[in-house]
Amino acid sequence: MSGLDEFGEIARLFRPLTRGAPGAFELKDDAAVIPSRPGFDLVVTKDAVVEGVHVPKGEAPDLIARKLVRVNLSDLAAKGAEPAGCLLAVAWPRAYRLKDRERFVLGLAADLETYALPLLGGDTVAMPDGPLTASLTAFGWVPEGRMLRRGGARPGDLVLVSGAIGDATLGLAAVQGEIEDPDGSLTYRYRLPEPRLDVRAALRRTATATADISDGLIADARHIAEASEVAITLDLEQMPLSRAAATWLEGQPDTTAALLRLASGGDDYEIVCTVPSGVRKPAGFTVVGRVSEGAGVEVRALGRTLEAGAGGWRHG
Amino acid sequence: MSGLDEFGEIARLFRPLTRGAPGAFELKDDAAVIPSRPGFDLVVTKDAVVEGVHVPKGEAPDLIARKLVRVNLSDLAAKGAEPAGCLLAVAWPRAYRLKDRERFVLGLAADLETYALPLLGGDTVAMPDGPLTASLTAFGWVPEGRMLRRGGARPGDLVLVSGAIGDATLGLAAVQGEIEDPDGSLTYRYRLPEPRLDVRAALRRTATATADISDGLIADARHIAEASEVAITLDLEQMPLSRAAATWLEGQPDTTAALLRLASGGDDYEIVCTVPSGVRKPAGFTVVGRVSEGAGVEVRALGRTLEAGAGGWRHG
Repeated sequence: MSGLDEFGEIARLFRPLTRGAPGAFELKDDAAVIPSRPGFDLVVTKDAVVEGVHVPKGEAPDLIARKLVRVNLSDLAAKGAEPAGCLLAVAWPRAYRLKDRERFVLGLAADLETYALPLLGGDTVAMPDGPLTASLTAFGWVPEGRMLRRGGARPGDLVLVSGAIGDATLGLAAVQGEIEDPDGSLTYRYRLPEPRLDVRAALRRTATATADISDGLIADARHIAEASEVAITLDLEQMPLSRAAATWLEGQPDTTAALLRLASGGDDYEIVCTVPSGVRKPAGFTVVGRVSEGAGVEVRALGRTLEAGAGGWRHG
Repeated sequence: MSGLDEFGEIARLFRPLTRGAPGAFELKDDAAVIPSRPGFDLVVTKDAVVEGVHVPKGEAPDLIARKLVRVNLSDLAAKGAEPAGCLLAVAWPRAYRLKDRERFVLGLAADLETYALPLLGGDTVAMPDGPLTASLTAFGWVPEGRMLRRGGARPGDLVLVSGAIGDATLGLAAVQGEIEDPDGSLTYRYRLPEPRLDVRAALRRTATATADISDGLIADARHIAEASEVAITLDLEQMPLSRAAATWLEGQPDTTAALLRLASGGDDYEIVCTVPSGVRKPAGFTVVGRVSEGAGVEVRALGRTLEAGAGGWRHG
């Protein structure tokens, strides 16, 4: 019950994905080996993707696989870790034919190639019914004791985000037909996020706390505040927006509500981090808030503080 | 999307399962850390369990969790690894209420306590429909370069199994109402297998190749034969049987077919291994076959060689 060998045809497709990693034993064993690397810690993370929840129902199998890889690499990126390998578990729905399974593996292969991530093993199982459900366990190396944490923000630090915020939640709205997406850029950002592995060195040099933005800027900033036992104030007008999101925002009658929507939607897979105020801001990052003593997240927009109601953030 | 924190109530139940492991960061981070251990390799394995496939439909949530832990620990046992930690991904079906989720976590807690296995992190997600689907990633340590492998059997070696074979497949038949199970021992062995962590030292001392028996004795012996590039002959009359299985066997009109059934059923979670013929057989193991040059598995019973047909093994 291992080695991804339940389907002969699929096993042949999976095998090259080991990229020759010796610890994968060509996926012919019950388990894989990751040799210790003196002076380094192994960062381990595991996120699952369910069709109809994390990806639209009926999403192309290759894109589901690629999103699975990317959301897990996003966690490694936020922790400053160098990707080292992964394990896959996938439950194939009955409706998945061989060509769907092949397409899933081809999507997986494409991204494992892009990110040079060896597949070390895992498990494929058949599911009598239900949506495609898959999880990836991703491994990465950091210098000993140097994993970037959610806990570590200090009063006086600035809060920064990478890239642009809110495209993915608009992309989901576009997929659902709620908004226009003339050039497809919003949809693309939702369906195929780009893990920010490129900013790892900058984060390791400057950040006191980090998280990737999977639940939404406000929610992930709150994770940092809670783990660091500090308060965070976010100013939503400072949020960096793509041209498409800025265009969408201009068309909204209620700017505050629109900003809240961008800051509450998930799936950005950008990085939110805190850095000491005296440090040079890393390229590609934007200041969106600050850290103070206290607890929780304060959200401001258009000069006002917004309040969190039972149903989420609303006008103060 | 990590830290098992999607449900507040459940997070409180999960948190103590870290057993204070510093790398788990109280499940408050995006990822966990496993420090390198010079002189040791990290063994990693990942098996999934789907309700209605690996456990009966409607199985008690706590027993699903416990089986999930045990099938993964069985892989570590077969590899000679000392359990070190785990990551969980679980997709809750819509029908799972809070008390079902709690019951799952309580079952998980019971076995993580039994096996002293810290929970380091993972992901909990909601599923719109479908059966409970969960995977565990298990980590264990072995001395550097010493993971026991499927590949390693040599011509002349003997094939041994631990414990008794076939109870679990009879237990499944009992669960399905096909056979009697007066004292419940067969059902118990199916629902709650015992990973053979107790034989790790003996295996490390003597075995040239190992696998746990999850797919059935014949299938898992074949995994060893393939990975080792040798032939294996199994004599099914030598299979160690429990009292309950022996009683069942006596009542069968076709002994050969019955033996084949016991050797083809999965879920034993015993160990099949090969040892050099001159080595003292470890306690609790039984010789069931031998290794020779060649390829594949030859299965013998009642003095005859059986043949594998398209539909599985049958009388020769």
